[in-house]
Order: sequence, then C-alpha cells, then structure tokens
Amino acid sequence: MHEYRAHRKVEFSDTDAGGIVHFSRFFVFMEWAEHEFLRSLGMSPGFFVDGAGRRASWPRVAASCEYRAPARFGDDLDIVLRVLSKGRVTLTYAFEIHRDPPMANGDSLLAEGQITVAYCMVDAEGGLKAVAIPPEVAGLIDEAPMAPS
Amino acid sequence: MHEYRAHRKVEFSDTDAGGIVHFSRFFVFMEWAEHEFLRSLGMSPGFFVDGAGRRASWPRVAASCEYRAPARFGDDLDIVLRVLSKGRVTLTYAFEIHRDPPMANGDSLLAEGQITVAYCMVDAEGGLKAVAIPPEVAGLIDEAPMAPS
Amino acid sequence: MHEYRAHRKVEFSDTDAGGIVHFSRFFVFMEWAEHEFLRSLGMSPGFFVDGAGRRASWPRVAASCEYRAPARFGDDLDIVLRVLSKGRVTLTYAFEIHRDPPMANGDSLLAEGQITVAYCMVDAEGGLKAVAIPPEVAGLIDEAPMAPS
Amino acid sequence: MHEYRAHRKVEFSDTDAGGIVHFSRFFVFMEWAEHEFLRSLGMSPGFFVDGAGRRASWPRVAASCEYRAPARFGDDLDIVLRVLSKGRVTLTYAFEIHRDPPMANGDSLLAEGQITVAYCMVDAEGGLKAVAIPPEVAGLIDEAPMAPS
Repeated sequence: MHEYRAHRKVEFSDTDAGGIVHFSRFFVFMEWAEHEFLRSLGMSPGFFVDGAGRRASWPRVAASCEYRAPARFGDDLDIVLRVLSKGRVTLTYAFEIHRDPPMANGDSLLAEGQITVAYCMVDAEGGLKAVAIPPEVAGLIDEAPMAPS
Repeated sequence: MHEYRAHRKVEFSDTDAGGIVHFSRFFVFMEWAEHEFLRSLGMSPGFFVDGAGRRASWPRVAASCEYRAPARFGDDLDIVLRVLSKGRVTLTYAFEIHRDPPMANGDSLLAEGQITVAYCMVDAEGGLKAVAIPPEVAGLIDEAPMAPS
Repeated sequence: MHEYRAHRKVEFSDTDAGGIVHFSRFFVFMEWAEHEFLRSLGMSPGFFVDGAGRRASWPRVAASCEYRAPARFGDDLDIVLRVLSKGRVTLTYAFEIHRDPPMANGDSLLAEGQITVAYCMVDAEGGLKAVAIPPEVAGLIDEAPMAPS
Repeated sequence: MHEYRAHRKVEFSDTDAGGIVHFSRFFVFMEWAEHEFLRSLGMSPGFFVDGAGRRASWPRVAASCEYRAPARFGDDLDIVLRVLSKGRVTLTYAFEIHRDPPMANGDSLLAEGQITVAYCMVDAEGGLKAVAIPPEVAGLIDEAPMAPS
C-alpha cells in the first residue's frame, strides 16, 4: 500500500485547557500530511490549475478520527498516510498519528483517522463540481512509493 | 429522541482560502453545541467537580463529519444535537448543521457528524480514567427535552 | 465617542494548555466585534461590493493587544469597541475586553487592544489597493451611536 | 543583537476567505518562533520547572503586529527573532516575518511584530505571579548567539 510519513511537533496553540491537543487539531494535522504527500508527488495542494487547464481542488467529503491517547505540547508526531481507496472521483486517505518516542506504556498510537476528498472543478464564483480524477493525477497516486515492507 | 438546537454565525476566522468554512471548524461547532446542551441541563462542560467530588470531564473518543455543502462567512447555522446512544461510560451525539435560510436549491443541510465522549475522572497530573457515568448525570441526559414531534 | 458593545462566551477551543484563552484568540474576538459593529450600521463585513460597484474589503494594517488578566473557558466577555480615529483611508478601532461579572478583586478588564484597517479595492486576482473611504461609508461611521454619557 | 531564525510554511488552515493568512495567525507564528528560540538555548517553552524548583511560565503581557504584505498558502516564511529588551521581570522580542523567495517587487517583509512576556510562577490553581527572571535564565538569554554581522 502507498505510504507517506510526515513529522510535526505539537505547538502551544494546538492545545486546550485540558492540557492536551484539541481534538479538532488532529484534522489539521491530517490535512497537512495530505498536502505534504501531494507535494512529494509533485502535485499542488489547495487550489491549482490542472493538466486540462481547469481550476481544481480536493474538497473534503468526509473526515473522521478515533482518539487513543492524548497528545501534549512539544510532542513529536509521526504521521503515517496511506491511500486507502481511489474511486472515479474520490480518494480516501487513512492516517495513523504516532508519538515519537512512544509513551511510557510502550504504545505510540495517539489517533487513527480517515479523510475522503473529491476531485472538483472550481468555477469563477468558487462553486465546486465533482469530476473524474484526471488520468495523469490518478497515475501519480498509483505510482506513489510503496510502504517499506 | 432528545434534541437540542443551537444557533451560531460563521465568523471570518472560521473560513479558509477556499472561501468556505475550514472542515476542522465543524468539529469546533459540534463541541460548542454539546457544551450548550450540557449547560441547558444545568451541567458543566469542560472540566468540573462531579457529585461524588471527583474532578471529571468528557474527553472525545471519536469524531466524524460528512460534508454536504459548504458554509460561508456570515452564514447563520442551525445546529441540531441528538443523544444517539448512552452506554455505561460513553455518550454518542449526532449533529446536523443546517443553513438558515436554506440554500438556493432549497436544501439546508451542510454537514452531519457524530462525537463520542467518555466520562472520565481526571487525576492531579491531568491523567484521564474512564468510569461509569454517574446515575444523576445519566438521569439528566435521559430527562433532556424530547424533540418536538 | 462612538461606542459599540458585543457579548461573547469563551469557548473550549479558545483555550490553551495554560488553562486560559490563547493570546492570539483576543484578536479573533476583536475582529468579530468589529464585524458586529459594521453589521449594526448596515454595512457588510469581510468582502463586499461597495456603493461605487467595486469589490472592497477592510484588511488589517496593524493590531495590538495588552493583556491585563487571563480569560478562562466559559467566561462571559463584554467587548467594547470605539472608533479611535478615522483617516482618509484608515480606521483605528480601540477595544476593551471585560469579564462579566468582574473578577474576585473587583476588576473586570482582561485586555485592551487596537486594530487599524484600510479601505481597499480588491482586484480579480485578489490583489488589494488602498483607496479613500467612500463618503457614504465615512458618514455611517461618523453617525454611529455615541457612547452613553 | 541576539538573533534567531526559524522557517515555516503557511498551511491551509492558516488562511481565511480573503485568500491570505488570517492576521491572528501571525501571533501564532511569532510564539512558535519564540518557543523554538528557547529550545535552541536548552530552555523549555510553555510550562516548566525552573532551577529553583518552581513551576514557571512566560505568559504574554503585550503583543503587536504591523502587516506589510499578505502571506498566502504554501509561502515559505523566514521568521527573524531578536531579544529587543530584557528587564527584571519582562522580555520583549521583536520579529520580522519574511517571504522566501521575496515577492515580485523584490520586497520580502510581510510583517513586523513584538511580544512582551513576563517570567511568572504558577501556583497549584494555575494562578500566575510575576517574579524576577532567575540569573541562570537571564544568562542563557544574554549569551544567545549574536546575529551574523
């Protein structure tokens, strides 16, 4: 399975008064890892002009996260991204967010999540219309490096 | 089913360069509605001392959202919270986020989500231990007003 | 002096691991009060089409805040906005953020800040060009309700 | 003058519907650079136990920013931190946030800001009391590397 890893340190503004990372920030971490993955393939994240000259983007269709253990200020995070499935229009990423080094009990997994995005054309008013993922984009994703076995 | 409604206007800081509300903010909206719901029952959100004199909280175990249509700066949101299930330790809320007034096509649903929280004791070091939801807390949730039929 | 008041409750996502509102959030609170003030005058916040048919906005030129006492989750904030000065192109707002009710020592002031914005035309590429505040806009601001004496 | 440089890429969640970085995020960038600076000296950012065994922190007393040019998604930022002044209790940092590479007009400066922090003891209830900066902390700051001339 295609796998990409990104590293990130928890910032103070990621935390909440519970002394831990606010649960909504894990979605920011996952999106950031997705953007780094796209850049690693030579693709633009965010909004971009695609090979057919269309303004395009990958808006989110669904996002989820299961929280296993809290992350704290200064923690070094190891985010593993995998392309879980690729449809005609959508792409689903699976993420694992690990703590490096592991916690005192030996576990490192802090959270697991998924994000599904759809390939969309963006019109002049910012409207979004889902279209088939172009072959050259699908090809780059299919050819992403495999996870080390 | 128990139902609670909260209203909120999209702020500029909720938006992103796509011109729409950043997907991670919907989780903030859902948590805020949960806190308003708890307050409506006379319960404290966040961290609190429970009836047994224990420092307690409701940390998140899982969260998910499906995005139906984008929300934009200044949109008035009508957030519907329902208690989907109540276990010995956990509580699952379901949310619908509607636009008021509806969009041009007549639809109002922008997003649907769920959040599962666990009743936890908090120790002096901020550590969390899941425990059974106390009867008086369970009672308040069971007796929350029913949705108008 | 023109004065506007807006009320807001501190949300859990506003806080940080220090157990208090993150200092950057006070700028979000001030911008929100500014937007509410503009709405109270019948003006659009954010991006809008002005009376001359131009796409326009009020981007920030400068912002500052002095922190007097921490704000905490659930605190009710009373934000006072005053139009401190109005130039040909810029507008400077002064803000006081009070806690309601006051703190145990009788003080209510949590923070004081200022934001300076410039009236700008927005071109098709999103570029910003500062221009003179249109007379009808300047008039609405000059005629904003005076603070109760 | 003591100078420290930190690099950071603008993330999608830093932006707003104006298509640029939200003005409040520059304060997050400055705090992050301050924390990286403290780490570079072997000091803990956030909350820490100091040499005298006291729980301590550096809460913000004041923060300001002047915005010269907008930053956009994906921009590489070069943040320059200087210790502007050191008092008995407070420390004032000055920041310049540059774009790397410079903009089309040859300028690179996006924003300039200052943050003043006070050395504080933290009591068991999270209360903060400003105290003199300990000599060993003051020494580490005085001995921070000088800017290359």
